Parts: sequence; structure tokens; C-alpha cells
Amino acid sequence: MIENPKLAELRHRLAEISDLQHAEAVLGWDQLVMMPRSGAPARAHQLATLHAIAHDRFIDPGLGELLDELEEYAASLPYDSDDASLIRVTRRDWDKAVRVPTELTAAMVQLASEAVEAWTAAREADDYDAFRPWLDRTLELRARYQACFEPVDDPYDVHLDDFEPGMKTAQVRAVFDRIRPALQELTVQGARDVVEPFESAHYPAGRQHELSLQLMRAFGADDAFRLDTTVHPFCTSFAIADIRLTTRYAEDDLHGNSIFSTMHEAGHGLYERGVSATLERTPLASGCSSALHESQSRLWENVIGRSLPFWRWFYPHMQAAFPKPLGGVSLERFHRAVNGVRRSLVRVDADEVTYGLHIILRFELEEQLLSGTLSTADVPEAWNTRFEELVGVPVPNDRLGCLQDVHWSGGSFGYFPTYQLGNVISSQIWARLLEDVPDAEEQIERGSFEEIHGWLRDHLYALGRKLTPQETLERVVGGPIDPEPYVDYLRAKVDSLSAV
Amino acid sequence: MIENPKLAELRHRLAEISDLQHAEAVLGWDQLVMMPRSGAPARAHQLATLHAIAHDRFIDPGLGELLDELEEYAASLPYDSDDASLIRVTRRDWDKAVRVPTELTAAMVQLASEAVEAWTAAREADDYDAFRPWLDRTLELRARYQACFEPVDDPYDVHLDDFEPGMKTAQVRAVFDRIRPALQELTVQGARDVVEPFESAHYPAGRQHELSLQLMRAFGADDAFRLDTTVHPFCTSFAIADIRLTTRYAEDDLHGNSIFSTMHEAGHGLYERGVSATLERTPLASGCSSALHESQSRLWENVIGRSLPFWRWFYPHMQAAFPKPLGGVSLERFHRAVNGVRRSLVRVDADEVTYGLHIILRFELEEQLLSGTLSTADVPEAWNTRFEELVGVPVPNDRLGCLQDVHWSGGSFGYFPTYQLGNVISSQIWARLLEDVPDAEEQIERGSFEEIHGWLRDHLYALGRKLTPQETLERVVGGPIDPEPYVDYLRAKVDSLSAV
Repeated sequence: MIENPKLAELRHRLAEISDLQHAEAVLGWDQLVMMPRSGAPARAHQLATLHAIAHDRFIDPGLGELLDELEEYAASLPYDSDDASLIRVTRRDWDKAVRVPTELTAAMVQLASEAVEAWTAAREADDYDAFRPWLDRTLELRARYQACFEPVDDPYDVHLDDFEPGMKTAQVRAVFDRIRPALQELTVQGARDVVEPFESAHYPAGRQHELSLQLMRAFGADDAFRLDTTVHPFCTSFAIADIRLTTRYAEDDLHGNSIFSTMHEAGHGLYERGVSATLERTPLASGCSSALHESQSRLWENVIGRSLPFWRWFYPHMQAAFPKPLGGVSLERFHRAVNGVRRSLVRVDADEVTYGLHIILRFELEEQLLSGTLSTADVPEAWNTRFEELVGVPVPNDRLGCLQDVHWSGGSFGYFPTYQLGNVISSQIWARLLEDVPDAEEQIERGSFEEIHGWLRDHLYALGRKLTPQETLERVVGGPIDPEPYVDYLRAKVDSLSAV
Repeated sequence: MIENPKLAELRHRLAEISDLQHAEAVLGWDQLVMMPRSGAPARAHQLATLHAIAHDRFIDPGLGELLDELEEYAASLPYDSDDASLIRVTRRDWDKAVRVPTELTAAMVQLASEAVEAWTAAREADDYDAFRPWLDRTLELRARYQACFEPVDDPYDVHLDDFEPGMKTAQVRAVFDRIRPALQELTVQGARDVVEPFESAHYPAGRQHELSLQLMRAFGADDAFRLDTTVHPFCTSFAIADIRLTTRYAEDDLHGNSIFSTMHEAGHGLYERGVSATLERTPLASGCSSALHESQSRLWENVIGRSLPFWRWFYPHMQAAFPKPLGGVSLERFHRAVNGVRRSLVRVDADEVTYGLHIILRFELEEQLLSGTLSTADVPEAWNTRFEELVGVPVPNDRLGCLQDVHWSGGSFGYFPTYQLGNVISSQIWARLLEDVPDAEEQIERGSFEEIHGWLRDHLYALGRKLTPQETLERVVGGPIDPEPYVDYLRAKVDSLSAV
């Protein structure tokens, strides 16, 4: 078959843009994992240059013309074919991108690279005032970005759309309004039954690393994965066969981070790794949206990684690695401890119940910051007041409060809600998977993840960005986003822990 | 002072190109230090794309016009001012680059990225035949590259000029003709007095790493440096304040690699780090040439790092790190062992005397391969025959023979001679430094390198690429390349070891 020459030209252009974007990803990963701090100013320039060139090439009118000319060809193909999807999704991306001047996108990337360094220092020093000018500048650029898309129903829609294409703020609000009372109720119920963390002890980072590697390999991470350490764990990919997970190890605490963080990032990585190889070097070669991505990180971390069947398999390995602190701790007690509703201050350490409240707080503050109803001067107070209302504990300082997350320094407004949407979707997908793999829990208990991984890959990961998030979810679970399975899941978990 | 607007435009364009080249360097470093092997095909595309875009932007006729328009301005400035140097050196680079089609440069970069992977596998398997097709393809592209510059006096000049601008093959040959008989004579003399390596023992990589860090810090490597491990040690930089050294640790052998490799790469790194900050994001922000670069790596590794004063300072640290194997070995014996003329097979493990013979072998073979008088089919035999003639030992296999070096797989023909020119120059620079710092040896013996590092930085490193290699050497030592100080240095060393 001879390829349509216009399609070949489109693919060639998009492949080069993909190369530039992956190069940007390598530089971003290096900045967070490897780079000496003194390299930061130059790195910001380098990232901005790569971003500007990629953006320039993408918004080139010639590329728009190619897309026009290929519309008829796309219509002749099956909707979900690689080619039709490439043309359709690229068209949508292009229509959005051409509204944004290259100078602005480069400025945003450069500022993000610089502001992340400033945030790191400010967080360490617990000095919100040192970070505030960077937040102001970030919000200025976000406002300019927002203005590229006026008029919109809700200004937040613009930012949300970058992570969850097609979703509206009103839909997020509806989901959150449904789950907030349930989360608050379950927080009160769960906190009554919390098992105190097992004794404070030394958990050597080297052993945690070995366990992390063992887990990610068991889940299905092949030789294409690396696992490195960083301050704020994340996952990125430089190709379908080059996946970088990062994690961190708290040597005095087995909760929250550490291997749970690895399981979380492994979920992201498996998604990226599972994209159909035919989509390599196209804009379709990644996960579909942030919420779908988070559905996978949270599925592997929580639905699987905090389940009793999982710990029936893995707890002996944990005990063998840490015989002194864990030798006398029963499986049941350990399982309760890693599921306890703990009302903790830090999102990434949060249990599954309070996690959603952390997100709701950030969503509310982001809406206010972007609409101008909250000044950056008032962020710490607003954070602390609302956090105590939602979670029920006071915030002692900004390091454990509004300075805890990297996202705002990186300009990622609109990202936080997708974490919680991901939780919601993970329950929907898991319920659907259980229909096809009814003995999934037994498989987990045997440490066998091949069928689960295979199901997720075939039904979700392989699609990449071919369909919209809404179409993808519809294809995987047969319906739209629905908070009920998630609320049921959490309620069942809290009830089961109460009942022990 | 208002900047010349055309100069501002030139600087802006060159800064973006510098960003792209540094991004390429990050991706290259990552490929050799971090990347899962399965990421290689995508990485080759990414590198080729970055290289092609940088080349395209550089050879843009608009940039040539800017250079034309700035010629008069440059002539009005001091010859070695930043601006005049920028315009002059960029002009020279541009005149060369415009001869080479972007498609060819991209193909060379892509092939190099792929061929390095093939070489790694072939070397491991001791399978020259598996590598040979890659070498053939590399030579084809080198021939196409060479043809961009026809006619030339000597085809090898073209390749040499990429690493040692302005130097001719005939000059290299003259230097090598002078030193070859001396090296062969000293090899025979030195090999009579060789002290056998201290007993084979276990030297844990972790301790070697700590010693390596201690040494690079003592030499003057600040927080802008990283030290990572790789198969084939190298140094690269992503900014004047972002320097990456790599090394490797043989746990059963203290010779050759390990901390000597770190000292070598630290020399490269100090050079890059010492370039004047005013040259950042310009084509002048790096070492002047490969030979000058090697003069610094070899100076720190050998002239300093294998000297008796150095070991008077550092040997107690070594003994403390490896008390069992080294506790009973005297300083004198250790110093003799790390300087012994050992006629080893592998260049990077070679002593200072036979090292040059390794280089002469490669230079001869490269000349023959590039002129077509040697077929790639005959490389192993030619290597083995000539190696035995030059060094006096037979080569047991290709892994320890013609497959040992990464350079040909990376397309770096013309690089090898600069290692030996670097040795020659290191002696010239050291002799000149001793005139200004007469107590340098006493300082080394105290572990104090600040004045030595400062002298080198002020006299050489800070210049970057502002002057030609010839001008730079003239400025630093007051004359052209001269093999006599080097031959004297080696002879004195071998004599002193014989005399003990």
C-alpha cells in the first residue's frame, strides 16, 4: 500500500515535533533527577528554546493546510484507525495551539523551570513570601494564556482542558459535590478506627529500592523502565520503550511515599509503555488525559497496592526486608496501618479517604486564584482555614501547607482535579475489569499481574490518545464518569477496616 | 552602552543554537549513562532532529549576512575581545558548516547513536563481524562528509580539522615521527623495570567513588559538577555551570581506570567550567580544541595524578580506603606500580609511555581506512600486526583489540591523534606553569591545587574558543607545539623509576 503523500508529510512533521517534545522531557527529567542546581538558569533557556521551536513548527500554517487537505481522507477511514485518529486529534490540538503565541508558551516553560528551583528553596526554608513573586508571575502568564481562549463559560475551563480535554469545570464541580460529603463522613468514621503506625524504625533506602524494583517488575515493567530517586516523585517517558519512574525513600517511615509512590508511578509508566507501537513519534503516543493517567497510577497504588490480597502476597517480602520492625506485626495490622484514615497534612502521604479532600481544597483555591477572587498574599491563610474545615486538623506551617506541592511552581493549574477524577475512574475501570477477570483478587494474592496488566493494556493503554477521554472511558467501561463505584469502594474499605 | 543591534540579533540566534546543542549533549549523556537500551532507536531520531534543526539554523543565509555586516564592527574592536572573537570564530564555523548539507549531518548523528549501541553489543560479544557493517556505513558517511571539502591536500585533514581546527595531518605526522622512536625505546627500557601490580584484591566501587569525589573536589570541581558511572568514561557539559563527569570502577584492579579516569575527566571538566561566564550561550563557551582539552585531562591525570608529590599527599587516603591490600605496600612501590610501563592491550589502561603508541596505531589505521587503502574486513589483522610491531605484545582478541574504543562507532575519525597531541601540549603547559608557580610540586604534596587551578583557568580555560588552538597555545606557552618537553618529561620519569 502506498501511503498518502500528504499523510507522509504530516507524519514527518509531527515526528520531528515529537522528537523535540521528548528532548524537552529528557531535559525536564534531568533537571529534577540529576542536574546540579547551578545548571538551572541555562536549563530554563534550553527548555524554552526547545518548546518555542516545537510550538512554532506545530502552529505552522502549512501544517494546518495539510490537515485541511487530509480531512476527506480521514473521513474515508474507520473512526478509530491510526490515521483517522491522528488527523482528527492533531486538528484539535492544532486549533488550540494556534491561539497561543510562541513567545508566551516559551515564557511559560522558562518561568516554570526557574520557579521550580525557587519553590524547592522556599519549601525547604518554609518561606512562602520568597515563593510568592514566582506565583504572581506564574498567574500573570496563566491569565495571558487564558485570554487566548476568551470567551469561555468558566475561566477555569481553559486550564482544565490542557489536562482533561473536553471536560468542563461544572462537571468537576458536580463530581466533587457528590463525593465531598461522603469523604468527610468517611473521614470521621475511619479516623475512629485508625491503627497507629507501626513503631518508628529505620527502613534502609537500599532495601526499599529493591522492593520497589521487585514490585514494578511484578506489575509488568520490563527493561524499558528505569527507577531513580527525586524530591517529588513523577513519571515521564522519552519513547514508548524508554520509561522513567522516580520515587523517594523516607527511611523513618514506611507510609505514604516509598514503595507506594513507586507503585503509583509504575501505573503511569505501564500506561505509557502500553501505547500501541504504531503510534510512536506521533502526538497520539501517550496516555489519553491526566485523569485517565491518574486512574492507572491510583489503580496500581491503591486498588491493587493497598488491598488485602496484595499484602497477602507481598507482606512476607516486606517482613524479610525489615525483619526487626515488622517481624512482630501481623498482616492484618500492617494492612490496616497502610489503609488507616490518618488526616495527614501532606497530599502525597494521604490515605485514600482524605486524599480527595486535599484535592478539593486545591481545586477551590485554584478557581479563586485564577478568577482573581483570592490574592496570592492570602493563600496561606485561605489554605489553612479551608484545610481545617475539610480535613479537621490545623496546618502548622506552609511547608506542610500551601508550599507542599510542585504543581503551581510548574504552572500546572488545572492538574489537581484530575488526581481525584482519576480515583473515581479507577473504581469504574476496576469494576469493569472484574467482569472479565473475575479471579483478579486471587491472581493478585499469587503475585500474578499478567492478566490484569494485559487487560488494561489491551482495553486502555494501547489506545493512546486516539480517542477523546470521554470516548476512551465510554469504550473501556461503557459509560461516562460516575462517582458511585468510587464512593462504594471507599465505603466498603472503611467499613471493612472498622469491622476487624 | 547600547549593543549593536545586529550583534544582538547574532547573539540571539547563536544562543538558541547553543541551547539546541546543549540539549543534544543532555540526550547524548543520558544515552550513555542512564537510558534503557530499548530507548535507543527513538533516541537516535531525537538526536538527529535536534542536530538537523541546529545545523539548519546555523547555516541560514541570514546568519551569514549578519556576519558580513558585522565584519567592520569586529575590525574596530580588540582582536581578543568577546565580540570580535565571537564574530570571527562564528564566521569560520559558518564557512565550514554551510558546505555540509543538513541531511548529511543529521544522518551522521543518527547513525552514530545507533552504531554506539551496535558497538556496545559487539564488544561485549567479541564479535567484530557484527560491528563491521556499522563501520562501513560510518565510513561511507565520512567519505560524503570529506567530499564536501574537496579539494584538500590530505583527505585526513578534513576529519582532523573538526577536532583540531587549523592543524594539518602533516604536522601530526611530524610530531608522531619524532616521538615514536623515543616511545619505543622507553617502552623497552621501562618494561625492564616494571613493578608487578600489587596483589589482586577487592577494591569496593563505593570507596573508589568516595575517593574520586574527594579528588575532583580537591582539584577544584565545585557544586556544578556531577560524577556518574558509565561504560566508557567521558566528560560533557550542558552549561558553564553544569558539568558532567563519568567514570567506571573496576573492583578487581586499581590501575588504569577508576580514580585515574576520574582525574582525567575532571581535567576536561575544569576546562569547561573555567570558560569565562561572559561567553555563555555562544559558540565560544567550550574548550578550544580536542588537543588542548586533552592537554588538561592528561595534565591532571598524569603530570599531577601520577607524580610522586601527588601520591605523598594522597596515598594515605588510599591506604585508609583499602587497608587490606595496600596497608603493606610502600608509597614508593605504589607510585612505581601506577607508573609502570606495562605494554597493556587497552588504551585507557595504558601507562604514559605506551599510550602514545596506541594512538599512533589508531592514527595510521584511520588514515588508511579514510583513504581506502585498508578495507574494514582487514581491520583486525592490521590492528593486531601493527600493535605487536609497535608495543611488542600479541593481541588475543578483538575485544581487547580493534573493538576496544567507542570512537569509530560514534564517527569520531580524527579524534585519536588529539589525545597524543594533548600529552605533548600538557608538558609544554606544565613547564610554563612551573615558571610562574615554582613551588607547584610542594603545593601538590600538601594537597593544595588552588593556585595551579587558578593559573590554568586564568591563562587557558577562561579563553574558551576565542582564539584558534594555535593562537591559544602561543598565548599560553609562547610558542607552537613542540614534542621536546614531552619526550624529556617521559624520559625523566622512566629514568627515575629505573633508578629507584
